[in-house]
Amino acid sequence: MSDIVVFSGSAHQKLAEEICSNLGVALSPSDSQRFSNDCLQVQLLDNCRQRDVYIVQPLVPPTQDHLMELLLMVDAARGASAASVTAVIPHYAYARSDKKDASRISIGGKLVADMLATAGVNRVVTMTLHAPQVHGFFSMPVDHLTALGELAEHYRAQDLSNAIVVSPDFGNAKTASQFARLLGLPVAAGSKQRKADDKVVIDTIVGDVAGKRAIVLDDEIATGGSIIELMDKLAETGVTEASVACTHGLFAGKAVERLRSHPAITEVVTTDTVPAPADWPELKVRSVAPLFAEAIARIHAGESVSSLFDGVDPAHAPPQPKLPL
Amino acid sequence: MSDIVVFSGSAHQKLAEEICSNLGVALSPSDSQRFSNDCLQVQLLDNCRQRDVYIVQPLVPPTQDHLMELLLMVDAARGASAASVTAVIPHYAYARSDKKDASRISIGGKLVADMLATAGVNRVVTMTLHAPQVHGFFSMPVDHLTALGELAEHYRAQDLSNAIVVSPDFGNAKTASQFARLLGLPVAAGSKQRKADDKVVIDTIVGDVAGKRAIVLDDEIATGGSIIELMDKLAETGVTEASVACTHGLFAGKAVERLRSHPAITEVVTTDTVPAPADWPELKVRSVAPLFAEAIARIHAGESVSSLFDGVDPAHAPPQPKLPL
Amino acid sequence: MSDIVVFSGSAHQKLAEEICSNLGVALSPSDSQRFSNDCLQVQLLDNCRQRDVYIVQPLVPPTQDHLMELLLMVDAARGASAASVTAVIPHYAYARSDKKDASRISIGGKLVADMLATAGVNRVVTMTLHAPQVHGFFSMPVDHLTALGELAEHYRAQDLSNAIVVSPDFGNAKTASQFARLLGLPVAAGSKQRKADDKVVIDTIVGDVAGKRAIVLDDEIATGGSIIELMDKLAETGVTEASVACTHGLFAGKAVERLRSHPAITEVVTTDTVPAPADWPELKVRSVAPLFAEAIARIHAGESVSSLFDGVDPAHAPPQPKLPL
Amino acid sequence: MSDIVVFSGSAHQKLAEEICSNLGVALSPSDSQRFSNDCLQVQLLDNCRQRDVYIVQPLVPPTQDHLMELLLMVDAARGASAASVTAVIPHYAYARSDKKDASRISIGGKLVADMLATAGVNRVVTMTLHAPQVHGFFSMPVDHLTALGELAEHYRAQDLSNAIVVSPDFGNAKTASQFARLLGLPVAAGSKQRKADDKVVIDTIVGDVAGKRAIVLDDEIATGGSIIELMDKLAETGVTEASVACTHGLFAGKAVERLRSHPAITEVVTTDTVPAPADWPELKVRSVAPLFAEAIARIHAGESVSSLFDGVDPAHAPPQPKLPL
Amino acid sequence: MSDIVVFSGSAHQKLAEEICSNLGVALSPSDSQRFSNDCLQVQLLDNCRQRDVYIVQPLVPPTQDHLMELLLMVDAARGASAASVTAVIPHYAYARSDKKDASRISIGGKLVADMLATAGVNRVVTMTLHAPQVHGFFSMPVDHLTALGELAEHYRAQDLSNAIVVSPDFGNAKTASQFARLLGLPVAAGSKQRKADDKVVIDTIVGDVAGKRAIVLDDEIATGGSIIELMDKLAETGVTEASVACTHGLFAGKAVERLRSHPAITEVVTTDTVPAPADWPELKVRSVAPLFAEAIARIHAGESVSSLFDGVDPAHAPPQPKLPL
Amino acid sequence: MSDIVVFSGSAHQKLAEEICSNLGVALSPSDSQRFSNDCLQVQLLDNCRQRDVYIVQPLVPPTQDHLMELLLMVDAARGASAASVTAVIPHYAYARSDKKDASRISIGGKLVADMLATAGVNRVVTMTLHAPQVHGFFSMPVDHLTALGELAEHYRAQDLSNAIVVSPDFGNAKTASQFARLLGLPVAAGSKQRKADDKVVIDTIVGDVAGKRAIVLDDEIATGGSIIELMDKLAETGVTEASVACTHGLFAGKAVERLRSHPAITEVVTTDTVPAPADWPELKVRSVAPLFAEAIARIHAGESVSSLFDGVDPAHAPPQPKLPL
Repeated sequence: MSDIVVFSGSAHQKLAEEICSNLGVALSPSDSQRFSNDCLQVQLLDNCRQRDVYIVQPLVPPTQDHLMELLLMVDAARGASAASVTAVIPHYAYARSDKKDASRISIGGKLVADMLATAGVNRVVTMTLHAPQVHGFFSMPVDHLTALGELAEHYRAQDLSNAIVVSPDFGNAKTASQFARLLGLPVAAGSKQRKADDKVVIDTIVGDVAGKRAIVLDDEIATGGSIIELMDKLAETGVTEASVACTHGLFAGKAVERLRSHPAITEVVTTDTVPAPADWPELKVRSVAPLFAEAIARIHAGESVSSLFDGVDPAHAPPQPKLPL
Repeated sequence: MSDIVVFSGSAHQKLAEEICSNLGVALSPSDSQRFSNDCLQVQLLDNCRQRDVYIVQPLVPPTQDHLMELLLMVDAARGASAASVTAVIPHYAYARSDKKDASRISIGGKLVADMLATAGVNRVVTMTLHAPQVHGFFSMPVDHLTALGELAEHYRAQDLSNAIVVSPDFGNAKTASQFARLLGLPVAAGSKQRKADDKVVIDTIVGDVAGKRAIVLDDEIATGGSIIELMDKLAETGVTEASVACTHGLFAGKAVERLRSHPAITEVVTTDTVPAPADWPELKVRSVAPLFAEAIARIHAGESVSSLFDGVDPAHAPPQPKLPL
Repeated sequence: MSDIVVFSGSAHQKLAEEICSNLGVALSPSDSQRFSNDCLQVQLLDNCRQRDVYIVQPLVPPTQDHLMELLLMVDAARGASAASVTAVIPHYAYARSDKKDASRISIGGKLVADMLATAGVNRVVTMTLHAPQVHGFFSMPVDHLTALGELAEHYRAQDLSNAIVVSPDFGNAKTASQFARLLGLPVAAGSKQRKADDKVVIDTIVGDVAGKRAIVLDDEIATGGSIIELMDKLAETGVTEASVACTHGLFAGKAVERLRSHPAITEVVTTDTVPAPADWPELKVRSVAPLFAEAIARIHAGESVSSLFDGVDPAHAPPQPKLPL
Repeated sequence: MSDIVVFSGSAHQKLAEEICSNLGVALSPSDSQRFSNDCLQVQLLDNCRQRDVYIVQPLVPPTQDHLMELLLMVDAARGASAASVTAVIPHYAYARSDKKDASRISIGGKLVADMLATAGVNRVVTMTLHAPQVHGFFSMPVDHLTALGELAEHYRAQDLSNAIVVSPDFGNAKTASQFARLLGLPVAAGSKQRKADDKVVIDTIVGDVAGKRAIVLDDEIATGGSIIELMDKLAETGVTEASVACTHGLFAGKAVERLRSHPAITEVVTTDTVPAPADWPELKVRSVAPLFAEAIARIHAGESVSSLFDGVDPAHAPPQPKLPL
Repeated sequence: MSDIVVFSGSAHQKLAEEICSNLGVALSPSDSQRFSNDCLQVQLLDNCRQRDVYIVQPLVPPTQDHLMELLLMVDAARGASAASVTAVIPHYAYARSDKKDASRISIGGKLVADMLATAGVNRVVTMTLHAPQVHGFFSMPVDHLTALGELAEHYRAQDLSNAIVVSPDFGNAKTASQFARLLGLPVAAGSKQRKADDKVVIDTIVGDVAGKRAIVLDDEIATGGSIIELMDKLAETGVTEASVACTHGLFAGKAVERLRSHPAITEVVTTDTVPAPADWPELKVRSVAPLFAEAIARIHAGESVSSLFDGVDPAHAPPQPKLPL
Repeated sequence: MSDIVVFSGSAHQKLAEEICSNLGVALSPSDSQRFSNDCLQVQLLDNCRQRDVYIVQPLVPPTQDHLMELLLMVDAARGASAASVTAVIPHYAYARSDKKDASRISIGGKLVADMLATAGVNRVVTMTLHAPQVHGFFSMPVDHLTALGELAEHYRAQDLSNAIVVSPDFGNAKTASQFARLLGLPVAAGSKQRKADDKVVIDTIVGDVAGKRAIVLDDEIATGGSIIELMDKLAETGVTEASVACTHGLFAGKAVERLRSHPAITEVVTTDTVPAPADWPELKVRSVAPLFAEAIARIHAGESVSSLFDGVDPAHAPPQPKLPL
């Protein structure tokens, strides 16, 4: 596996190193600079010629800087005659801009996918897109991994009698019910309603949660506002204890403070697709570096990625090797 | 408005005529031929040069023939120096192929969108895409209309006390709850589970439907299998009466027989995005031709389409002119 | 030759199997489905990653379904990270739509070539395009094989004294004279004239056919109408016996009945680029599977395809390795 | 018609002036320079902004210089914000490179069409392409005019009893028979055969020419070699008198001397798609400037170009407004 | 001029307002939002349909945010069916990344130009690109304005006897000598040399500056480091007084402090392509809003932009309407 | 290294042979033809399938013919299924058309780069582009070699005390100062001024040249006019002796006569990127064939090209492996 070259942008060097460690290759160095007019430049410091280049960069804050850094690295690799350029984007944040819910806005998830193609990306490896349809925004092959299996491992060690999986809204309910089946649990979902022009609230919980222990599942937690609101609503129905799980734990703004101090939240579980906040020792972080490393190894060896989870559980990996329609 | 030219493929001539009638223009003739080797050819029989050409064609069975006919008409219009070519696709059937739920399949909704671009489509006008994200599959501007307002009109004339809106699955639940708010009703949704490798069933209803009258809402009804299954599940919870509504009423296979004869289904309401089955006089069809005509008129006059529903109800038209995030 | 993967669409499974048999590889399985709204989906059931994928599909009736099936398979292979995707289209039916002989029509042969490129085809292998210029409609490399040598083999076993090659029209006359030289025979051609707005007839035979045995050669026979009309015209000049040969024997509509029962037609010879009609045991079918297999083997081994016919006869294979200008 | 801007490359300034004169607009000036390293540069000397720019340039020798000059002018117009750029190419010489008759050659007619698209051409107006399929090489709209009607006018003034239209080869035979029908005459064609590796000869005349006056029709005459050879072959059959007609009269090399002095050639008729040789006063040149001017006027006014010949004769203009299939 | 719509990104609202004021149109509102995961979204709050949309955004710090905001606005305008989208980028900061002076870096100026094309920009209006060749990085028309005339106006009011124009390096020397000729002055330039691996210094002044008053001209001043270094070098040759002029006055880092307090710098002159620092009242800012407004007005009216400076001075505007080669 | 295939256009067969000789491969034959209508055709006479094809062709006069020949060869190689096509263009003459110094002209260097991409070029290897920014005109990877090191070798053998490097204008001054540092010499440059509308003259020499021996360096010498003019200006300052060096020695028009007979020019040094004039035995030509061969070998072996000059001198090769910013 000598001709894989892996670079890391500045967003999450630690994850890149762990992926490389799992792959048994050394992370190649690069040099990011910021000019005095705030323009960026990145120099790749290993030969790329005729090599398969992988660039690891989740789109975490400062998102625009990290996106531009990724684009510059991709273009540099292409200009340096790479055989192929794969963007490994563990958290594709712009996936949330996936539809036109107001007039005269951009569908940012599509625009960024097109920008990646323009810069020269030949393949994308990513995890848990906000909606599965976002896969179709990309014009190049996408290997779309899932962290559901990894998160489920966490709960398999627990007593799950009396537990229920709860999705904060209908948009994530399908994934939540997939997760619930992995654990053999029932599912419920919050229903949101617009109160005024600038306020959306959860007005009801659809499903029977009374007296249960909630396992709240979301794809991304940013400020944690929706989770807190859901907790309040759950409290009204008598739910007094919840474990919170998400793939992409950004924990921006006051999220750490809010979630850490909430009396009903017993634990928060996430993955390392994004860097963990420095000040939260109790946060349970499960590493997805082995999954990314295995996917890269299979891509490089020309082996099936979808069969990566064969024989484990059919719900671990979308897409499935074979699914009835 | 003399320089609009509207052609119709052979999928739904009647709708095209009604759109033209609402626009106050004559439908332009075209001549479709099938060669003895089964290849198609379409000749447009009105001058297209420097004109804004609109081609009306929902993707209804035989879907591939109608798709190819549309592509040939678009290419012919482009080659005949049309100023612009707008594909008016009231039912974009391939939108259901919107994600990779099995490995090594095509995301058909994206592929067909790319084929439309290749043929020369400059703009798409469509209604109720299976998922709102499908909008992002298109590389050209899309005017995405909704029939929710039109369907809601039907129910506003009824006594809605004790009614509840029910979505057959979580995928459609967001739209169902938008519809429910239009009518001031609560919402419920079916939760599907895979039983065996080739069987998906609704295993539970999430939400409190007991003793209510159901208004079942789906985007497309083809064979009606999901609806019947939902009715059985609702019956278990004591729901004995339901009105069924959908935007795209294909009613393929045994759908007419099944739905028409079901004892608990009191009525079926749909629109004319696709041709109505010949043998179902009680089917309640609300025409969306005026909505399409108005959209085309506004496009042509350079007026806002999103404001088409201003002052009526904020939930009629996606996207909204202004929405909080 | 372990990393060739060959799939077959549903148009002509038998030919694909014979090509594979000649190649010494197993045909890879795929699963075609038709949704209840008539949309198609195809799942490729063998790993494609980093492999050279070949998809065999002649464009025979139902032509649009077979075309769409091919496009979906190509897109699926590309999305599954195939190293390259080759469309093997033994009969490219849309080649007949190769010019604008009426205003405001599409040049379908170009449109379909562009659609193939959009879906992700990297190379096309085909046989006997209706006009050699159609090669230029494709933006990717095309290996354009000929069946002339194979058809000539059939006649070399016959007594050819007093025979003449006859082309039904001028469009095919160049190929007919190439075929005639292969057999050392003279050539004649029918001249067509438009009688009324909707009727084209052969009004004369250009060349001296009187008292000869005709070998009628065409690229494609669909309904056989032109052949029958040519036979009538030949009869006027005293030709009472003809052998009919073509590369693509579609035999649609009443073709089998017409040709089989015609008193002057002694035999019909064709190839297996398209499936043979079930009810015609006397039809002489020469297989081109070995030619396709050899071409694929050479493509895969990086050997010259044009030299495939070196030392046999210069007229077998267009293009020639070296031709004066 | 104030916002048409017409420029001329240096290939055929006189034709451009006559087109402008017919259009009633002044030819806009441009300035072509050749740098000391032989690179070309052209400056357009009239404002192009938001105007419809037409650039007249047949591809006559020195062909590469004229092609590059055209490409530079097109790119300059695009860069100067022209609303549209139409390349008026009365003789598209590279159309002769329309197929792969040897391996590892370019199909030059397709390559040049792609180069025109790359430079920014939005539309092409041309006349009598070597093969009608070449139309499909272009990705932008093409208005393909014909000179057949104009050439036929010449012969309508003559006594045509005992005349026959003769095509030098089968490739042009379809056009020749269209021309023959315009004049109510029979048709014949030469059949070519390869003698040795570097020599193609006409080995027979297919059709009954004995004792007739020949009207030889070809699309382009360059050195006149084929015509002279055809004359020799015709002489063998007793044809002693011929009128020679072509659309594109290049008359390169010894063509003027050969054709002018040939005892059996009574006249040579051509058009002004290319500049006439200086030293041939008897050459009969019919101007197609009015046809080009009318086409441009109709393009600009958004009127049908195919109907340009309505009511005159159905064979004047390909494509026809309506043609049976 | 009712159908121009001008939006402003958040980089320099004041300049956009002044351009609008000069144009006599109102600046259209837009609404920029930053999601909690740091992704941006912009909603355009005026109808764009069939309108010519202009978006004003210099690429000033935070450069990546402003770039992404611009791309989102462009894509939103395109998706909202704008007739055309013009990016007005008074300072195109990435133009400094115009060549590969290290291996395996991106040419950022080209990458950003490609990203603008991908987002849907149809035209760019910009000022004083770092190198004139950067114009060629764009695939769409660029109107490249100059501030030289505006800056020269400032000096025409001064006593210029004994003055000399000095460029900090050779890269800007051509522009400096153009500026010198506008003022009738001699020119000099600094010559830079690399001292160590990470240090470039001006090692000599080429040209006779001794005892003169320097007018230092640069295209962009960021930290002012080069200017200060040049002042030191000039001081060695006896130059004790300098006026500093630049088009793009970013004045980042300690630039204001350094330049304002330098004993030999008598004044600093710049334009408003970027926002002026808040704390520098003596800075002489000349507005280029009238130039941008006039350019937009001419673009919209289809008038020549290059003739904008006709009759004033041939060196004001690149490119010149006519220039010897 | 068996699967490299190198072809040569007709521009500089000798250089191609020397590159091949250095590579240890045989130059593959091709056959260029000129049709009687002046169109070109090239047939590649070695198998290209799955091979890395290199085509050597500097753009020397007749430039348009050589450019078209190159494009046809590239397209032929692509159509013949080459794995990759590299255009080796030792002198990219159109690089001089690198900016818009007059309105409504094409930036020819960009247009030709786009045409190369259209024809199918995957990589370019070139030397000493007129401006380094021209690199950014290409959408494919470019290996940009320099002859500075090779030219410097020539002077290292000389006594350089009292010598100074002189650039004829500011545009080349940066390269001249890089060259000067390689030799440890000072630098000067001519400053050009427009006298009348059609005349540009060197009006002054910036830098202290009095009494020195000049080493005049330019990238390309065509007619030698600028060099002669510079010599006159240098003579005014007392410079009586100069050595003239350039990378691309076209020596067009009267250049040989002018330079050879000039009393102050002691020698002219150039490389073989273009063919040397036949009649100039004293011209000192240093071959760059080994540099091109080494670059091709490294490209083929997947080794770094930028490190080709490691350990020699940091200024030999742009871009540098690592450069401070």
